Amino acid sequence: MRFYSDNTASICPELLEALVQANVGHAPAYGRDAWTQRLDTVLGQFFGAPVRAFAVPTGTAANALALAAVSPPYGAIFAHEQSHVIRDECGAPTFYSGGAQLVELRGPQGKLTPAIVSAALNANPASIHTVQTSAVSLAQATEAGTVYRPGEIAALAELAHSHGLKVHVDGARLANALVFLGCEPADISWRAGVDVLTFGATKNGALAAEAVIFFDAALARDFELRRKRAGHLLSKSRYIAAQLLAYVESGVWHRNASHANALAQQLAAHAQRWLMHPVESNELFLDLGASNRERLRTAGFGFFDWGAADSGHARFVVSWDQSVADVSALCAALDLL
Amino acid sequence: MRFYSDNTASICPELLEALVQANVGHAPAYGRDAWTQRLDTVLGQFFGAPVRAFAVPTGTAANALALAAVSPPYGAIFAHEQSHVIRDECGAPTFYSGGAQLVELRGPQGKLTPAIVSAALNANPASIHTVQTSAVSLAQATEAGTVYRPGEIAALAELAHSHGLKVHVDGARLANALVFLGCEPADISWRAGVDVLTFGATKNGALAAEAVIFFDAALARDFELRRKRAGHLLSKSRYIAAQLLAYVESGVWHRNASHANALAQQLAAHAQRWLMHPVESNELFLDLGASNRERLRTAGFGFFDWGAADSGHARFVVSWDQSVADVSALCAALDLL
Amino acid sequence: MRFYSDNTASICPELLEALVQANVGHAPAYGRDAWTQRLDTVLGQFFGAPVRAFAVPTGTAANALALAAVSPPYGAIFAHEQSHVIRDECGAPTFYSGGAQLVELRGPQGKLTPAIVSAALNANPASIHTVQTSAVSLAQATEAGTVYRPGEIAALAELAHSHGLKVHVDGARLANALVFLGCEPADISWRAGVDVLTFGATKNGALAAEAVIFFDAALARDFELRRKRAGHLLSKSRYIAAQLLAYVESGVWHRNASHANALAQQLAAHAQRWLMHPVESNELFLDLGASNRERLRTAGFGFFDWGAADSGHARFVVSWDQSVADVSALCAALDLL
Amino acid sequence: MRFYSDNTASICPELLEALVQANVGHAPAYGRDAWTQRLDTVLGQFFGAPVRAFAVPTGTAANALALAAVSPPYGAIFAHEQSHVIRDECGAPTFYSGGAQLVELRGPQGKLTPAIVSAALNANPASIHTVQTSAVSLAQATEAGTVYRPGEIAALAELAHSHGLKVHVDGARLANALVFLGCEPADISWRAGVDVLTFGATKNGALAAEAVIFFDAALARDFELRRKRAGHLLSKSRYIAAQLLAYVESGVWHRNASHANALAQQLAAHAQRWLMHPVESNELFLDLGASNRERLRTAGFGFFDWGAADSGHARFVVSWDQSVADVSALCAALDLL
Repeated sequence: MRFYSDNTASICPELLEALVQANVGHAPAYGRDAWTQRLDTVLGQFFGAPVRAFAVPTGTAANALALAAVSPPYGAIFAHEQSHVIRDECGAPTFYSGGAQLVELRGPQGKLTPAIVSAALNANPASIHTVQTSAVSLAQATEAGTVYRPGEIAALAELAHSHGLKVHVDGARLANALVFLGCEPADISWRAGVDVLTFGATKNGALAAEAVIFFDAALARDFELRRKRAGHLLSKSRYIAAQLLAYVESGVWHRNASHANALAQQLAAHAQRWLMHPVESNELFLDLGASNRERLRTAGFGFFDWGAADSGHARFVVSWDQSVADVSALCAALDLL
Repeated sequence: MRFYSDNTASICPELLEALVQANVGHAPAYGRDAWTQRLDTVLGQFFGAPVRAFAVPTGTAANALALAAVSPPYGAIFAHEQSHVIRDECGAPTFYSGGAQLVELRGPQGKLTPAIVSAALNANPASIHTVQTSAVSLAQATEAGTVYRPGEIAALAELAHSHGLKVHVDGARLANALVFLGCEPADISWRAGVDVLTFGATKNGALAAEAVIFFDAALARDFELRRKRAGHLLSKSRYIAAQLLAYVESGVWHRNASHANALAQQLAAHAQRWLMHPVESNELFLDLGASNRERLRTAGFGFFDWGAADSGHARFVVSWDQSVADVSALCAALDLL
Repeated sequence: MRFYSDNTASICPELLEALVQANVGHAPAYGRDAWTQRLDTVLGQFFGAPVRAFAVPTGTAANALALAAVSPPYGAIFAHEQSHVIRDECGAPTFYSGGAQLVELRGPQGKLTPAIVSAALNANPASIHTVQTSAVSLAQATEAGTVYRPGEIAALAELAHSHGLKVHVDGARLANALVFLGCEPADISWRAGVDVLTFGATKNGALAAEAVIFFDAALARDFELRRKRAGHLLSKSRYIAAQLLAYVESGVWHRNASHANALAQQLAAHAQRWLMHPVESNELFLDLGASNRERLRTAGFGFFDWGAADSGHARFVVSWDQSVADVSALCAALDLL
Repeated sequence: MRFYSDNTASICPELLEALVQANVGHAPAYGRDAWTQRLDTVLGQFFGAPVRAFAVPTGTAANALALAAVSPPYGAIFAHEQSHVIRDECGAPTFYSGGAQLVELRGPQGKLTPAIVSAALNANPASIHTVQTSAVSLAQATEAGTVYRPGEIAALAELAHSHGLKVHVDGARLANALVFLGCEPADISWRAGVDVLTFGATKNGALAAEAVIFFDAALARDFELRRKRAGHLLSKSRYIAAQLLAYVESGVWHRNASHANALAQQLAAHAQRWLMHPVESNELFLDLGASNRERLRTAGFGFFDWGAADSGHARFVVSWDQSVADVSALCAALDLL
């Protein structure tokens, strides 16, 4: 029973069907196909505002290309020390931006706050000798499984903008955050001041499809050239666009995330003793200790250890296709610890 | 009737079926899945030698990552002036290698020869002030639709190696070249001295799947880190590996390329007057003139103008899924010009 | 008797004296010193227009930083195939711009022409797949020792600007060109449409001092950050600025270049038979053949072979501090060949 | 009376004289001159071991080129959060290495310890998804004005090497550290496990001269190409080498640093109340508070505020050419606070 990651999940039927439906004869390549041509409209409707939307196959590419649009080579990007862009992308944002530094900030529950960002700006005043802070990157949901409230994002964006910084959101699990909040996509994106956002479908049922969403078209000015140069413009672009369209139009983004979130809540109820963070999406971080981890593994549960080697922490991720039986079994096993 | 590019083609049934077959429950992510784990073995059997094989979603990524493995940031790579790596990848090899220059060489029929490479080496002797030539990049089939013979590659590789250069092959259409030559994959790869090769499946029936093949494992030393950093390590890696496995194991690489090549020969027979290069794969380059181009377009044929704006040249590409009817119609139209 | 390069020359007395004069007590660092603060004004007077002027220690840094200001990472820069930026800077323009390609163009006498640039633009129409041509780089004097006339630069700049390209001039030997033309600096810079220019003093008498001159301040927007990031902002900046100020204000730029140019003309009169290019600055390129080269070397003359290994070509450079006796001896030796 | 930085100081007489002495006729360019040719030998004698030594004009270039030699583009470098390589080089190490991240570590008195480095390694275990820690960078003296003891460096190097990391030392103020310790240069370099070190002369009396010292020639393999590509190979290289030779051979490195250190101690005796760190080189960091800073400025003393805007901290640097009168005046002023 696998709780390793939502990356281990399969493709959901609606999205696989979308691939099959798109597989009809010839179609223009490199984004001139009918599917890609609809992305701006369909994602604009989803977010409730005009957008420029671009499809790429991975979340790392999506984040790195988005950050390259808001940071010069001599720039710096504030992000939480546990963020994917710092910990898990092998330096991709630096590579894509041509050199921008990622500056690690600490904050409780995987979140940044205006006070944290403000302190960082004050501690290192800009000069000709320093990298120039250009953006704040947030993850929604965070790498701690928590979710920023609309007001939290708005407050961060207001501070960021007042210092000339742009706001990026890593939305690899945006659907899970939206389901948890029950708000409109606009509330945690442009309406809260977000400049560029990545909207992930892969973890939530796609084969490989992420959208980079710009709410300010000026920032997207050279995106297509940067994407091509990075090898992320798919030649048979219809197949990636078709996934994104179906993800939004069929409603599977909501159904799949709701399923995963609900099962995560069920697990949380049995894991209260060990919860390191509130469970607000489809991830649980548990301070189990090494022996409990071992007992769960022996009982057949797969999951990753988390944090420092001797921490005793563990991460459990509930996927869109996780069975209720898996979760029930894990609940029972947790009760026995 | 579309002869724009083999990129406009659909996914072939066997490869779509491979995706469906792979869509069974959870599988480890990021290359630890059972499909990816078989790539070295299956592609090693195909090429008749031990290989390190890596899946990426685009040909641009495949070439750029392969070239980054054989060129330092201060390096230079010889390639034909019409090559994809120079003309059509928006600088990706330079980006991925951290700065390597692409040096354009001219040669008939889209090919380089030992004499051409030798002259280039002599004309610009290396010093501390120059970029350091590190590799020769060949396309097989070439961007002129021609095919290097095994002996031609071997002669180039011998020269390259004697000057400390590595040999890269852009095999976006390797299947078409193999079908044309009727030789073993080994004959135009490691046996001829090729160090690293990209083996494309996308143009020949896949959704998005290209393999980077190293015949010298030492060159692949940091490939996985570079791929991850570039955002080209797919999280649900099973789906890209499954395409490559099916491409080789089912034999569709051969069937699809044979179909496209045969139809291209049929067209060639009706286009002799205008042929700019011998037709050796699935592409025809015709010196039609502007008015003939217009007449064909009016008759319903889609294709790209080629070369300089006023050249009157045109490119026709036959895809794996091109219908015999399309080709017969184009033959008839050519006869009427 | 050394005719290797003007890089082998010494520091001229006025510039050494300027260093001594600047060596008085403490001065603000990193460009806030009184010398650096005068650069814009003094160089603006020299060029007859408002400028932003920045000092760097080497010509390679000057060119690379200037080109990085006019080319994005996915850009391309047209330059003559013999240009320093392509042949002799080990890829620095690509490094500094974050990836821009240098595109080699051929032209007689080391020069580009509007026809050559126009043909290159037509031959490779821009698309999402191509690098985006962003600038034309000229050398004044050229690497063939020839000099662009004001009208030649103006015609190139008009073409470039009409295609959205910027114009860069590598003025490592600008003083020699100015002396030859007898025109105002404005005539071959902003008045002719040049956007950014490097103005060398090192070859013509300085220790190490080159100025990057922007005629459009908007292009200099992030120059200081790029210079700092490249390690080319000298901490004791007064000493580099003092050289540039003395170079212009004392008139040694003119005296030194006049001396070198005049001696080069004297040599040219004795080398008519072998001249490969008109002698218009302080360099001669001679098609001597291997045996004549050997005879001159045996006679005690130092110079570099040029071009391909078997070309028989040689380059002779007259420095600002070359003795009349050296030149007379070489004239005599040439007469004996 | 200026205590801003040792960068505001002048050139010391012996080094200016070395420039004059080197200014004799023609000399080969680009490092083939007799002065540069002696660098390895003379600096090897200084450090008591065979070295590869390279001259560059700035400390930023020296550090960035050195770090590029020990870190791949996907690498990471541990350094103190207050280090020059992180705070004051505008991202140069990232630029030069092609993307390596600088990872900020905290430690008392501006120093790293094995425990700090070990904790950082444990907290972020390496995987295919992470940047790969490749080096530890230390400053000697540190940015807090403190000095690592030989044993402290050795312990850090032992830990680093056991994890496959290289050790870099930023020796912009190495002379001050050596004078304080009274040890041999070997004791805080190769003998303690340092792999590459930058040895600064600029702050301590040169015009612009820093040496990059490799104790393992294999690491210097492509240094010359990287230096050239960065525009840091001076054409008239004799003048930078002459400074470094005179710096070591004349003993001014020791005399100048001794003077500055001794005056710093004199100041420290009058600033005990406010000292934030032990004074071990030529820098003092004082927790003065805003009003005391203001009083000193009113009294005619120039110095920089330090740290966060509202910290009340100040930095005073004693230069090699600081007058005893300046220091006496500052001591008196401190006594009056």
